[in-house]
Amino acid sequence: MSDLAQRLQSGERRALAKAITLIESTRADHREQADALLTGLMPATGHALRLGISGVPGVGKSTFIEALGVFLLAQGHRVAVLTIDPSSSVSGGAILGDKTRMERLSMDTRAFIRPSPSSGTLGGVAEKTREAMLLCEAAGYDVVIVETVGVGQSETAVAGMTDLYVLLQLPNAGDDLQAIKKGVMELADLVVINKADLDAAAATRAQAQITSALRLLPTHAQTVQRVLQVSALKADGIAPLWAAVTALRDDREASGAWAAKRREQALAWMWERIQAGLRQAFTAHPAVQTALATSTTAVREGRIPASTAARQLLALFRSTP
Amino acid sequence: MSDLAQRLQSGERRALAKAITLIESTRADHREQADALLTGLMPATGHALRLGISGVPGVGKSTFIEALGVFLLAQGHRVAVLTIDPSSSVSGGAILGDKTRMERLSMDTRAFIRPSPSSGTLGGVAEKTREAMLLCEAAGYDVVIVETVGVGQSETAVAGMTDLYVLLQLPNAGDDLQAIKKGVMELADLVVINKADLDAAAATRAQAQITSALRLLPTHAQTVQRVLQVSALKADGIAPLWAAVTALRDDREASGAWAAKRREQALAWMWERIQAGLRQAFTAHPAVQTALATSTTAVREGRIPASTAARQLLALFRSTP
Repeated sequence: MSDLAQRLQSGERRALAKAITLIESTRADHREQADALLTGLMPATGHALRLGISGVPGVGKSTFIEALGVFLLAQGHRVAVLTIDPSSSVSGGAILGDKTRMERLSMDTRAFIRPSPSSGTLGGVAEKTREAMLLCEAAGYDVVIVETVGVGQSETAVAGMTDLYVLLQLPNAGDDLQAIKKGVMELADLVVINKADLDAAAATRAQAQITSALRLLPTHAQTVQRVLQVSALKADGIAPLWAAVTALRDDREASGAWAAKRREQALAWMWERIQAGLRQAFTAHPAVQTALATSTTAVREGRIPASTAARQLLALFRSTP
Repeated sequence: MSDLAQRLQSGERRALAKAITLIESTRADHREQADALLTGLMPATGHALRLGISGVPGVGKSTFIEALGVFLLAQGHRVAVLTIDPSSSVSGGAILGDKTRMERLSMDTRAFIRPSPSSGTLGGVAEKTREAMLLCEAAGYDVVIVETVGVGQSETAVAGMTDLYVLLQLPNAGDDLQAIKKGVMELADLVVINKADLDAAAATRAQAQITSALRLLPTHAQTVQRVLQVSALKADGIAPLWAAVTALRDDREASGAWAAKRREQALAWMWERIQAGLRQAFTAHPAVQTALATSTTAVREGRIPASTAARQLLALFRSTP
């Protein structure tokens, strides 16, 4: 076991930060060290509750995570917060992940907050966040929160790497219809109506509407209360939310669904990375690169069948090194 | 141009049937001939209206397609009916595609009916159906109907290869909720309430419910009437349905959306086939095959990170022939 691994496992936050920087590096020798580090730490992973959280800008994600985090620290938990920022691949900048947004949490030594990697595709960013999650577990954090903003495919990525996925909603009806349309509601294990203090009647109406909408979804046949009201600013409703989270966990641990989901997630993740790697190798292949533009044009213009073009390109890929 | 291609283009139905059998063959030499045939015929393709039709078992697909087909023949069209049967890859048998279900259509020499290939993955079956569609176009059929039953991913495959996708529904409320849940409604350009004669009140209620549900979907912002009542058994409502189909086509041809969709479909198809081919090459690679079971177990059991396993397998794939 390396020195870095030992310091990380002893709970040194600087070692954890350094390890995450290592897995985020694109240098080949760093990648090898990162793989060795991760593999060595694997026995120490898997013990945290992995909680995904998303919501549209303005829903109050930071305030919510801060309120939940402070509550959890008071209960004796250690909390890590990671971020998947789908804007980072475009702008290199962060619409999330600013530590100063969670002032109390970021100043507490029992919490660890890490913003999104600042470049890469969504798949690449998600991969590094997933690995960072394992490192946080090995460092002894027993609740890992993965946060994303509600745009693009990032919710799917977060739901695919966490045990429970919580969707934050505003107390108005238009918002929840958007989520249903986009299929995000289907991913959610719990829906939190945040800022419920702003308009109690609207929050109760939204709760009823979303509860009835969820009944339509095949994944939500259970009878558990899945839609909760919270006021993160006043720290109202945090304890009932955490009770719902742990109740769901206990149910699923008892049935075996919890462990089964993790196994499926890990395998799905492996195959997602394989597919991405194959596509990358394909498009970087010299002979394919030369032919691809011509094939694409011919297929677009209807001069050769798409399936024939695919076969020709695949033959190039396989016949030459 | 080959003899087969010439006979096919002159409208000989036996030549078309033989050409489809050729593209369905898994023999490598047949595949080469098929690619040459298809590429040679490409200039003669693209002139048909490609219509996708699906619905749950019992909704009356055959009766509907027969009524529509007979109507179109009377209007001077030539009609081909192809089938994607998602059960064929499992049972080798057909829950669709029985010619005798469309007695009048199958006896008419201006119509061509071809059941689903009887084996292969859904992706493979869909590929062959897409190629068969091109052959039908080259043979002069100006309306090609691709039919599938409403199970699995076959609706997505059909919507992805046709210009317009029509979803058949029964006149009862439970049915349309199922379609909304499964995301199928989002794919539909038109929704037909079939068997409307059985219960006029229920059909009108279903029409109103589906119309209002469609308004929620971002793809259905247009103001065109998209939900129609039909009684295929009495051939009621077929002419208004065809009027809706041609109105949508005219709108989209004028805006350029029609041609743009075909270009996108062809490119998406090429990439879908490339991804499938890469995955097949990957899993058939000797060194990968040897390592894959071990890696899968290690990932499932949490002994190595999914992303590390993916990188190791990809390295094996690329380093050895």
